Amino acid sequence: MQRERHTYLTLQTVEAARQGWLDRISAEGRELATEHVPLSAALHRVLAEPVAARRSSPAFHGAAMDGIAVNAESTFTASTRRPLRLTIGTDAFWINTGHPLPAGTNAVVMVENVNTEPDGQHVVIEKAAFPWQHVRKLGEDMVASEIILPPGVCIGPYELGALAAGGVLEPLVFTKPRVGIIPSGTEIVPLTEAREEDLCAGRCLPEFNSYIFSAIVQEAGGEAFTLPIVPDDPEAIGAAIDTAIDQGADLVLLNAGSSAGSHDYSADVIARKGELLTHGVAVMPGKPTALGMVRGVPVIGSPGYPVSAIVALEEFVQPLLALLQKRCLARRETVTALPVNPLPSRPGMEERIRVKLGRVDDTFFAVPLPRGAGTVTSLSRADGIISVARDCEGIGRDEPVQVQLLRPRQQVEGTLLAIGSHDNTLDLIDSFLRREHPRFRLASAHVGSLGGLMALKRHQCHLAGSHLLNDADGVYNRQALRDNLKGEPMLLVRLVDREQGLIVAPGNPLGIHGIADLAREDVRFINRQRGSGTRVLLDYRLKQLGIRPQQLAGYEDEEYTHMNVAAAVLSGRAHTGLAVRAAACALGLDFVPVGVEEYDLVIPQRYAGDERILALLDVIRSGAFRKEVAALGGYGVEKTGQVIWEYDGR
Amino acid sequence: MQRERHTYLTLQTVEAARQGWLDRISAEGRELATEHVPLSAALHRVLAEPVAARRSSPAFHGAAMDGIAVNAESTFTASTRRPLRLTIGTDAFWINTGHPLPAGTNAVVMVENVNTEPDGQHVVIEKAAFPWQHVRKLGEDMVASEIILPPGVCIGPYELGALAAGGVLEPLVFTKPRVGIIPSGTEIVPLTEAREEDLCAGRCLPEFNSYIFSAIVQEAGGEAFTLPIVPDDPEAIGAAIDTAIDQGADLVLLNAGSSAGSHDYSADVIARKGELLTHGVAVMPGKPTALGMVRGVPVIGSPGYPVSAIVALEEFVQPLLALLQKRCLARRETVTALPVNPLPSRPGMEERIRVKLGRVDDTFFAVPLPRGAGTVTSLSRADGIISVARDCEGIGRDEPVQVQLLRPRQQVEGTLLAIGSHDNTLDLIDSFLRREHPRFRLASAHVGSLGGLMALKRHQCHLAGSHLLNDADGVYNRQALRDNLKGEPMLLVRLVDREQGLIVAPGNPLGIHGIADLAREDVRFINRQRGSGTRVLLDYRLKQLGIRPQQLAGYEDEEYTHMNVAAAVLSGRAHTGLAVRAAACALGLDFVPVGVEEYDLVIPQRYAGDERILALLDVIRSGAFRKEVAALGGYGVEKTGQVIWEYDGR
Repeated sequence: MQRERHTYLTLQTVEAARQGWLDRISAEGRELATEHVPLSAALHRVLAEPVAARRSSPAFHGAAMDGIAVNAESTFTASTRRPLRLTIGTDAFWINTGHPLPAGTNAVVMVENVNTEPDGQHVVIEKAAFPWQHVRKLGEDMVASEIILPPGVCIGPYELGALAAGGVLEPLVFTKPRVGIIPSGTEIVPLTEAREEDLCAGRCLPEFNSYIFSAIVQEAGGEAFTLPIVPDDPEAIGAAIDTAIDQGADLVLLNAGSSAGSHDYSADVIARKGELLTHGVAVMPGKPTALGMVRGVPVIGSPGYPVSAIVALEEFVQPLLALLQKRCLARRETVTALPVNPLPSRPGMEERIRVKLGRVDDTFFAVPLPRGAGTVTSLSRADGIISVARDCEGIGRDEPVQVQLLRPRQQVEGTLLAIGSHDNTLDLIDSFLRREHPRFRLASAHVGSLGGLMALKRHQCHLAGSHLLNDADGVYNRQALRDNLKGEPMLLVRLVDREQGLIVAPGNPLGIHGIADLAREDVRFINRQRGSGTRVLLDYRLKQLGIRPQQLAGYEDEEYTHMNVAAAVLSGRAHTGLAVRAAACALGLDFVPVGVEEYDLVIPQRYAGDERILALLDVIRSGAFRKEVAALGGYGVEKTGQVIWEYDGR
Repeated sequence: MQRERHTYLTLQTVEAARQGWLDRISAEGRELATEHVPLSAALHRVLAEPVAARRSSPAFHGAAMDGIAVNAESTFTASTRRPLRLTIGTDAFWINTGHPLPAGTNAVVMVENVNTEPDGQHVVIEKAAFPWQHVRKLGEDMVASEIILPPGVCIGPYELGALAAGGVLEPLVFTKPRVGIIPSGTEIVPLTEAREEDLCAGRCLPEFNSYIFSAIVQEAGGEAFTLPIVPDDPEAIGAAIDTAIDQGADLVLLNAGSSAGSHDYSADVIARKGELLTHGVAVMPGKPTALGMVRGVPVIGSPGYPVSAIVALEEFVQPLLALLQKRCLARRETVTALPVNPLPSRPGMEERIRVKLGRVDDTFFAVPLPRGAGTVTSLSRADGIISVARDCEGIGRDEPVQVQLLRPRQQVEGTLLAIGSHDNTLDLIDSFLRREHPRFRLASAHVGSLGGLMALKRHQCHLAGSHLLNDADGVYNRQALRDNLKGEPMLLVRLVDREQGLIVAPGNPLGIHGIADLAREDVRFINRQRGSGTRVLLDYRLKQLGIRPQQLAGYEDEEYTHMNVAAAVLSGRAHTGLAVRAAACALGLDFVPVGVEEYDLVIPQRYAGDERILALLDVIRSGAFRKEVAALGGYGVEKTGQVIWEYDGR
């Protein structure tokens, strides 16, 4: 295996890299073609020129009310004392809204103010009409030849209306910028062809960045086409760039191979075939980005990890597509939020941190999600993104920071923020909430039971899941509330009784039958993090049995969720770990019961009347929810939704 | 002509009408069908069920860095003092990012920290590896069976990534709700078939609301189909409703005919064929809205005027489509702004007022647009919408009010707000700005020259167009600045010299040759509003000639723009009016020159360095701009862009 590594050009700042690339592209002077499209196909297209009205709207003086059309001057004598009699067809004309005024008339009297004589041929009015009353005058909305829409506007419903009213039936728009996507990597296979067993053995990786990229391009007004996957071979990559350009690409997007590894050829190929402007950008994730030009066409080499790649697309491709369409780039709405944990960051690098958000007592709190560049769920689960500046070493807890919103603000405002212990039924609550009460959601952050109580104490969340066993009396949660939430009245609401136990490989090959077996020399354990209820339970049981933690191989190896414990057992990383039965069921693993524990929701009493909390209680008390929870396996739902204890804060 | 009128049911509030209708629809229990779609067609579809990962991601323990894979425990002795020598292929394995760890390894040492011996068969490390360092563990992103996306989520690029990573290649989504649109009205013809001469004579009206509606439906995730236009005939309307339902409509949208006029049958037809829940809603525009159910399908009768109709769609159809898709309805971002004029409003009715927005010195100012329900440009030109509550009699000038944004906030922040005299070249500046500096725009409000200086005085705008003649010395603008802007240093920048004159019908049939002819008995005049420079010019010339205003027929008949003056002449409403030559040229009218005037931009000196103002000056000083202005006719551009005078505020 070749160990020769490519190197980055000097890292550039995002701003400098972007500006250099866009300036270079502008200098090239390429312009998108334009085309006329019918209005029925014009939605979300971008106007290529200022549009002038071809006709005036309205095109005639028309009635704005139902009534009679009159010549205002002939009514000036009318008053209550001296009502005026008019003859229909001569000096008064019945007219409906929208219809043109008959010649010689210039005002409309509303039908409510017209008295018809029994003969039907005459009407009487008791008030003078002033000229042009209740008349929509010719050109009131627009006059032929007036500019009604400027260039660079993305056509929405309102713009369609203006175009139609102005008689512009085929506006001139830019063709959609075409983006040629080239997935690369010898180990990459098309998503739809990836076989399960090959994936699990690591013999191949599914290609799916092209789906994400196509969608981003489409939302930015472009059109993407994806070429066949090319292997890690400079010749093949170069040929694919040519193919994309020959197929009319306004931008070529090379995916993966842009880093500095021995198989990363993107930057070299761009440099060899054209001009490499940037290799390496001071942003995390997104650092391994290459920007250049080949045959007059911009080329970007984007990182292979999806989250890094998305950052590269948002920082470089979206602005480029806006530039080509000469439109204003839409930035996201922002809110000010406080991080619930400190967010350290590496100086010299900008950083993009994905967060969940919730508004607690009029303050937005941000819960950071995993920062790994490969975790796409850190984006699909995120409500917002925090950008940490290059010269910043991080953001402290409770230090106000701007968060770009990924969802409408009111959706974030409808979010119940749960911080605390992890349980799969929390995801189920979220799904039920969204179906039954679409305004509300549940976002949960998993920091363990004790971390949840701390977050409640700091008023950073609306509720916390907790299962903290008091080893003095064997009672769950109550002592922990007294110890940690003095002065904060809380409700303890049962979510589930749940079975905890040891997850083991199918068939339990090592014959693990209980906590005592964890001390065996041939057993490797996977633990949960400090502060989690499961860790408390383990330590309690070890103590009862007189086993010291050091006797367990793997006691220091920690995971943060039940599912990750199960995954560790599935992958052979450990032989067993303590978790809920549902996690074992989900992955087809075996389960050795250790005991039943009480998993409660801790809810501040001041939220007892909050409509989001009421919706949550409504959900967990419903039969449908309890039925689905029971089906997960290992859960008792007899007391689900019951208020177990009202803690008065003392 | 029949005079019998239909009547509204009692007006309902928007909130009550909406809730009643949605509750009734929910009670019906109809649900959208669901379908599986491939990821390539899943963008912007709405998930119908919670989605669980089908595979774990990553599917194996893989390298997160390029380097060597090792068993961490076998490296514990390594240190700078005691480097550890490892054998490639036995206890160390070269590995690239993303590749699976060989069996027996659980950590990666970065290539930067590996020294290769000359034989290529051995490597040396100087630091112990800890378990799982630089490893992406199986399930780190998601574990098979975990819920990765809740129902009701609209699939965007990030969600596509999560679905693909989880091996969910054909997610279950709701079918798009189908909306059957029925345009109605005996005088209505399809937009593409409307003949110019018929339109101008008022013999027909073009149907274009269906284009607007289709776009609104599409943006809300639905799919619209438009039926042929039906005449104002209850039978035909009823039959069309049946057809729409037979064609699978989840909602029937009857356009026009929902008012209380003699030809408005929508409400009656709904009542006769099904159930009429609401007729008449307390909102302006939008009052003539009817809501009901026919054969278990919701039906809305929307007003015929486009702006009213759009309000009805936004208040009733968008929430319905969200409800059907069980998703959260997106509301618009809001900002706080101050109206530049008082906004009176009718108590008892909610009102939606369209406004332009600009941010001046950190304050957003809102300039109201025409309120007519037929003016679609009041929407396409609007930056935001103010909702005035039902119990409110209006909003005072400088009274803070919430404005829903129709454009991204930063686009509004890039807006130069010009309040003052009207000139067509202002639209041209806007078009040039958008093309050359897409971040910036010019929004102009036409209140006349004097109104512009008042707005500058109140710091409500960034600049004002002005052409105020001082009748004492015949000099433009300077005295007006001294009189109205004391203490406010300004720059006077020439935009254009422009020809003012009398616009007359082609061929000048009345033989109008100058201001003196305006006093003739056979000449009807159309005037501009008080405070406009054109009005000042007229009065100045009349005074010179010793003509009293009362001698002019039509002196009290006012319009607000040059184009509307030209339109008044074109339509025969007046024989002549004073305006710029370009307006006459645009509508093919004749023009009798009266004089050349100086049209300047008045710009506060404190904005001299503002990047938006610099961009504007850049535009108006460009050859391309001056060429286009000259082509409009009647403009002199010799001094365009020159600073004519620096007013020091004294």
